[in-house]
Amino acid sequence: MNQDIIISVIEMLGTFAFAISGIRHAAAKQFDWFGGYVCGIAVAIGGGTIRDVMLSTTPFWMTTPIYMICTAVALITVAFFGRWMEPLKNAWFVFDTFGLALFTIAGIQKSLAFDQPFWVAIIMGCITGSAGGVIRDVLLNNEPVIFHKEIYAMACVLGGLVYWLCILTELPAEISAILTFAIICLIRFLAVRYHISLPILRDV
Amino acid sequence: MNQDIIISVIEMLGTFAFAISGIRHAAAKQFDWFGGYVCGIAVAIGGGTIRDVMLSTTPFWMTTPIYMICTAVALITVAFFGRWMEPLKNAWFVFDTFGLALFTIAGIQKSLAFDQPFWVAIIMGCITGSAGGVIRDVLLNNEPVIFHKEIYAMACVLGGLVYWLCILTELPAEISAILTFAIICLIRFLAVRYHISLPILRDV
Amino acid sequence: MNQDIIISVIEMLGTFAFAISGIRHAAAKQFDWFGGYVCGIAVAIGGGTIRDVMLSTTPFWMTTPIYMICTAVALITVAFFGRWMEPLKNAWFVFDTFGLALFTIAGIQKSLAFDQPFWVAIIMGCITGSAGGVIRDVLLNNEPVIFHKEIYAMACVLGGLVYWLCILTELPAEISAILTFAIICLIRFLAVRYHISLPILRDV
Repeated sequence: MNQDIIISVIEMLGTFAFAISGIRHAAAKQFDWFGGYVCGIAVAIGGGTIRDVMLSTTPFWMTTPIYMICTAVALITVAFFGRWMEPLKNAWFVFDTFGLALFTIAGIQKSLAFDQPFWVAIIMGCITGSAGGVIRDVLLNNEPVIFHKEIYAMACVLGGLVYWLCILTELPAEISAILTFAIICLIRFLAVRYHISLPILRDV
Repeated sequence: MNQDIIISVIEMLGTFAFAISGIRHAAAKQFDWFGGYVCGIAVAIGGGTIRDVMLSTTPFWMTTPIYMICTAVALITVAFFGRWMEPLKNAWFVFDTFGLALFTIAGIQKSLAFDQPFWVAIIMGCITGSAGGVIRDVLLNNEPVIFHKEIYAMACVLGGLVYWLCILTELPAEISAILTFAIICLIRFLAVRYHISLPILRDV
Repeated sequence: MNQDIIISVIEMLGTFAFAISGIRHAAAKQFDWFGGYVCGIAVAIGGGTIRDVMLSTTPFWMTTPIYMICTAVALITVAFFGRWMEPLKNAWFVFDTFGLALFTIAGIQKSLAFDQPFWVAIIMGCITGSAGGVIRDVLLNNEPVIFHKEIYAMACVLGGLVYWLCILTELPAEISAILTFAIICLIRFLAVRYHISLPILRDV
């Protein structure tokens, strides 16, 4: 019961932070409110929607309006209180990382519930956590930032491998999820703190 | 019976105008005939395809070749009679607006027929009417025009709300559809006539 | 039996060549290893995934990890042996063309197996063969190359028409497939050798 509340709170904070990320990128391109809302929604629900379409199930956001409402609140926040957001940037980063970790775990668990093998579940976890940002960059006509900046999606992949190991060693699902959550957040925090990137491909 | 014919005529005019829009944008980027055809198709069927995938049903264009043929006619029109199109631009604008209104209503009605709640149906109506243009802009490597120009997708959302109100007040479906059609066209005409846009998001 | 082995070998060569194409384009944009892998995957499985989503079936790559492994091998090849790839460019071109032909035929046959009419099957064959390259270009923020370069996707369409003719004249499926394969490869080789393009659309 308490656990469900904690998960719901993290999910809403993560959705809010994801939506903020989309809306702020849209603002940097002088988009209007509608464009900002669509970019916010794209980040907040894009990854999970791709996952659900591939799993041949109804996209998760069609079962409750909470994600639409949460993005609307994020839009109002940026539109009216945008100037006060800059000092809070560490908070957004932390919420965004929590969202990344939680969405990755949710993607893995949902895929396993649909009887997918573990390697598919890890890919789906990675898509759930990071594909929304790619859609945002495509809509904004930018090169996807996760393809050449600090480690982001690889944190989801490594977290997925940790989850797999936990399940293989028969740890209970809750402990596995908490461990995975901690690992993804840790990798992301370290990557940004120390500017850790993957090697760049040489042009050939 | 007569009513079905009217709807079919509007649908073909709308599909034709949507395809023309994609093909002309492709021509502005020096695409070849194939590229033009794909951009035309993208505008004509892109939104409805996303809707149908999310509703877990077969994309509507796979059940009849009429949309492919209509786009082929549009391609031939632009390729051979392009120079005579400029004076007709008001006609394209009117057809395009008719298409927007009709596709929005079709998207709402199909979603309701699939037992979706009304707020999902309005989103699906908006996607049906306007997502094709976004796909066109993504394929052409442009910033999506509906995110920073005159009101376009918001006309679908407002039309959807009107349709909802009509149904809530137990108006018959046909009257509701005609009213919604009129509202969407009116908003779009006024928006373009008086350059009405949504507020731009400030960069934060 | 032997025939299955030949098809599997061509499929792996084609997947490898498609993945190489995505990874090399990513390298030209200074993407990191993860970005390269995603672009490689996008070319290798993007078209088939769109086809499977439209046919309302599970994407083919979720049933075996072979495509993920093949793309990983391609990534290692580019990352470590990239400097030796230039002299082999004719080999990549040949493999890529084999992949295009084989994927087109596979797309047609799978669509027919799902009881789609032939005109849908030809479109699906074209999507299976060429949509991956479009997704790559969208992710890389380039204009899709198949919309304004030598004939590429039209080879799939023409190959599909040949396959249709063969089936109409009641040729056995294997002979039809071999003929179609040969035609697609021939058109592609001739198009590149003699720089044959479709006409460009005039800006109107």
